[in-house]
Amino acid sequence: MLSTLIELQRLKRLDRTGWTLRGLPNGTESVAAHSFGVSVTAMLLADKLIAQGVTVDVQKLLRIALLHDWAEVRVGDMPRTATLYFGSEARKQAETAAFSDVIHGSGEAEGLYASLYNDYERRESLEARVVKAADVLDLLIEVLALERAGASGLDEFWEVAEKPNFNLEGPAEQIVQQLLESILKARTELHRNV
Amino acid sequence: MLSTLIELQRLKRLDRTGWTLRGLPNGTESVAAHSFGVSVTAMLLADKLIAQGVTVDVQKLLRIALLHDWAEVRVGDMPRTATLYFGSEARKQAETAAFSDVIHGSGEAEGLYASLYNDYERRESLEARVVKAADVLDLLIEVLALERAGASGLDEFWEVAEKPNFNLEGPAEQIVQQLLESILKARTELHRNV
Amino acid sequence: MLSTLIELQRLKRLDRTGWTLRGLPNGTESVAAHSFGVSVTAMLLADKLIAQGVTVDVQKLLRIALLHDWAEVRVGDMPRTATLYFGSEARKQAETAAFSDVIHGSGEAEGLYASLYNDYERRESLEARVVKAADVLDLLIEVLALERAGASGLDEFWEVAEKPNFNLEGPAEQIVQQLLESILKARTELHRNV
Amino acid sequence: MLSTLIELQRLKRLDRTGWTLRGLPNGTESVAAHSFGVSVTAMLLADKLIAQGVTVDVQKLLRIALLHDWAEVRVGDMPRTATLYFGSEARKQAETAAFSDVIHGSGEAEGLYASLYNDYERRESLEARVVKAADVLDLLIEVLALERAGASGLDEFWEVAEKPNFNLEGPAEQIVQQLLESILKARTELHRNV
Amino acid sequence: MLSTLIELQRLKRLDRTGWTLRGLPNGTESVAAHSFGVSVTAMLLADKLIAQGVTVDVQKLLRIALLHDWAEVRVGDMPRTATLYFGSEARKQAETAAFSDVIHGSGEAEGLYASLYNDYERRESLEARVVKAADVLDLLIEVLALERAGASGLDEFWEVAEKPNFNLEGPAEQIVQQLLESILKARTELHRNV
Amino acid sequence: MLSTLIELQRLKRLDRTGWTLRGLPNGTESVAAHSFGVSVTAMLLADKLIAQGVTVDVQKLLRIALLHDWAEVRVGDMPRTATLYFGSEARKQAETAAFSDVIHGSGEAEGLYASLYNDYERRESLEARVVKAADVLDLLIEVLALERAGASGLDEFWEVAEKPNFNLEGPAEQIVQQLLESILKARTELHRNV
Repeated sequence: MLSTLIELQRLKRLDRTGWTLRGLPNGTESVAAHSFGVSVTAMLLADKLIAQGVTVDVQKLLRIALLHDWAEVRVGDMPRTATLYFGSEARKQAETAAFSDVIHGSGEAEGLYASLYNDYERRESLEARVVKAADVLDLLIEVLALERAGASGLDEFWEVAEKPNFNLEGPAEQIVQQLLESILKARTELHRNV
Repeated sequence: MLSTLIELQRLKRLDRTGWTLRGLPNGTESVAAHSFGVSVTAMLLADKLIAQGVTVDVQKLLRIALLHDWAEVRVGDMPRTATLYFGSEARKQAETAAFSDVIHGSGEAEGLYASLYNDYERRESLEARVVKAADVLDLLIEVLALERAGASGLDEFWEVAEKPNFNLEGPAEQIVQQLLESILKARTELHRNV
Repeated sequence: MLSTLIELQRLKRLDRTGWTLRGLPNGTESVAAHSFGVSVTAMLLADKLIAQGVTVDVQKLLRIALLHDWAEVRVGDMPRTATLYFGSEARKQAETAAFSDVIHGSGEAEGLYASLYNDYERRESLEARVVKAADVLDLLIEVLALERAGASGLDEFWEVAEKPNFNLEGPAEQIVQQLLESILKARTELHRNV
Repeated sequence: MLSTLIELQRLKRLDRTGWTLRGLPNGTESVAAHSFGVSVTAMLLADKLIAQGVTVDVQKLLRIALLHDWAEVRVGDMPRTATLYFGSEARKQAETAAFSDVIHGSGEAEGLYASLYNDYERRESLEARVVKAADVLDLLIEVLALERAGASGLDEFWEVAEKPNFNLEGPAEQIVQQLLESILKARTELHRNV
Repeated sequence: MLSTLIELQRLKRLDRTGWTLRGLPNGTESVAAHSFGVSVTAMLLADKLIAQGVTVDVQKLLRIALLHDWAEVRVGDMPRTATLYFGSEARKQAETAAFSDVIHGSGEAEGLYASLYNDYERRESLEARVVKAADVLDLLIEVLALERAGASGLDEFWEVAEKPNFNLEGPAEQIVQQLLESILKARTELHRNV
Repeated sequence: MLSTLIELQRLKRLDRTGWTLRGLPNGTESVAAHSFGVSVTAMLLADKLIAQGVTVDVQKLLRIALLHDWAEVRVGDMPRTATLYFGSEARKQAETAAFSDVIHGSGEAEGLYASLYNDYERRESLEARVVKAADVLDLLIEVLALERAGASGLDEFWEVAEKPNFNLEGPAEQIVQQLLESILKARTELHRNV
């Protein structure tokens, strides 16, 4: 169990490659900090859903959010372009194998972690799909924060926001869409003021 | 909801003061990265407990772990010595008020977040106490990682490890104690090799 | 005496929280670097005053400027919002106690340092008030420098500049006001060019 | 031609993942800085070889050294463990395709760059093999410099030094071996003094 | 040979002073990363020239590009203004003496390195002049990349671009001029979009 | 006056070259942070002297401490080795001319600043010599702090401590010597514990 925790510590220092490749300073955002952001965003989304009567397994949702990037401790935070060259299938296989090795020996819940990871990779459950939405929303809120602090050259991240396909429906789709729109509105206001 | 998420983004950049005050470089660990570490550690501890037949509300545990440091976005990451001068009671009151303002307008679950925060501050539930243990264990694993990378002058953090009082009992106490001892053993081995 | 100096070294690494909380990189400005800026600004202001026939105790002024932030080595650089939650009175008491412990054992001048600190906290002397003005002016010049380098999202700092109340009068008020206006003018020109 | 140069600028900021994953600060070494080190080391090795009468195409050698990491601007600096999960064959294919896209439109020498890259990947020419040796030697000298500055936990890098297989022979093998041994000797002395 | 390589490692960490003096974060660009950029730019320029039938000694060109900043490991990266105070002649003499000491004992090619350095300092050969052009072009592409990422306050660097005097003629002059113009055009487009 | 203050802001970001050239991270210590340390150390030394009946012009002492490194904003923080190549006389002349330009237009006290700078350069007054001692003592305390945090490879700085020649006598010499010895003792204890 300790060796798993020691290895995961490394995510606290691993830079998200997207920022450094666009000229932002090293240390802009670590993978661990991003995972925290995704988990918090997923929790708030889930609580909105629950308030509208949707059943959400919050335990499952938070577990997925916390573990969805663990493979990066062995595979690194690959830039988007890397997936083009490896193919998304090869990337999935590599990350699944890396995840499996990371959790090896973490204890009795090893099997549970593996099945949650697979759920996330396949976006099977509602919880997995909400975490994926939170993953993108946290990215966009980070971009918004960076632009507010003066960064530019990040336009390509906003393209994601135009054609989101999270495979959600009903209240889940609406709630994610509302948050997305309020992010886009905040950005429009930001650039009007500049 | 967006304004809460935008404010919490700031934890991704806020340095844990303990490291910079001891001469480690800026950017050593953010509050968000630490919260991620605490959440993961709490999850692994909980799964050990469950495997031993203890009932743990994992949803509650992960929610507490994720939100326990949100007040720092307004109060800052106060060094230990600061508490001596303000008094732990004043600090608790200030952080509780700050937490309350951070979650204001975060949606229907606002009341739930406030009650989980109070539970954590008072260490009422088993889940709150396990998160507190995880908070200390993640700190020690970080110190171990820093020492492995060459840092020194961090001895005072290990004093915490000698007299831990997490107010746990039965399997919870044993499991936390086991992890603590394996951390201490790893440290002993590290210094034997140097 | 050495232990005081060793402890104060830590201010060289302690980040000014205001920048990191607004998304600027870690390492933007240390408390020690800010204290240097305040001291230099205070010296230049004092020399302007002297040139206009005002009596200024420059020794006292520079001593106050150099020591006014020493308490932060124990209390940290608390963000503005922190004062709202603790109350400015509690903050003053905590910082005064911390300052007192920092200088404990620094030698024969311990009593002098304590009385200069109290003077600053109460803005009793002209020198204390000029240092307070220098504290704000150095902040604004830093914001100007950051905006010139591309930073944004720092508007709230400029609100301070609109309603400054340094409790100065006569030539002191005029000289501070002139510097303030030249800073504001430089900012207006900066944004016209962008 | 400009778009190629703009893209390659990004290597100046891209951190070598090996350091951050071992707890060293962000910004320890960029891919561009490493490429500079490899090129300089290759040049010095080549000049030793020439002095011993070996024919070396220095132009070819320096071209290979300068371009051998260009693919990382799209694929990232993958940690060693990543290769285990993707397979070294898939990695080579991905990097070759990425390299090909990076140089696309760089001008008349596009074909030359592609053939030099392939030579390096296959270690066909003496020049390609000397660059590979320089790649490892620059890594070890960097580790030595980091250890001299206080870093630890880098032992696994030294394992490479024990069983180097650069497929060199004659004077080339001797010269590389001599440099390797002087590095190992410098390390032994370093640790004797500590 | 090892001592030369160990000393040159330091260029990987030495900040280009121009950026930090203009308020950009530490770690923006190292001297080693810049030398890599100059070498790559020089190579691409040379290959354009060759394609137009000009004879270029690429080996010589790349050697000069790699070694032209080695003296900075002893003299530091002096800001432009420093040259005003020391005089460009004194600076040249100091850097030449420093270079000479850096390469002392680097092996049989020591004399070659010294003569290439002198060639560069005097801009005697075509290769030396093309490297000088690459030195300026890499600077401008870096400024462009920084401005794209949000930096400002770098206008003075663009003044260099208006009156370049690289003492080149024929195809060399044209090719450098074309690259310069495409950089300026990219900058104009960048600022139109902002 | 504002233009002088804006220019001096740059010292807050300018790295002390000595650390980066020895492999410590960028941002280890700025010139402004060092000037703060020198000023504080000088003040404490002066107060010890005064307690022993020596007359010290503290105003003059603090002014010198605050302004002694202003020339670096134009000349940069030259590494020690740079002085070897330029000659200490040329360095003094360049820095004096740079200082003169920095303070140009800073107001009525311009002449005073120039004369204090000259006093420091020539170590004429007791105050100038105490500041020089403080300059070295702050350096050694910083080295001590870095070594406490795990840094190594800084031995050459301690050589300064063995043969200090501050041209002081009587109580001034004793007090500086006492502080020096307590620093050396703290270092010995540090290394005994490691």
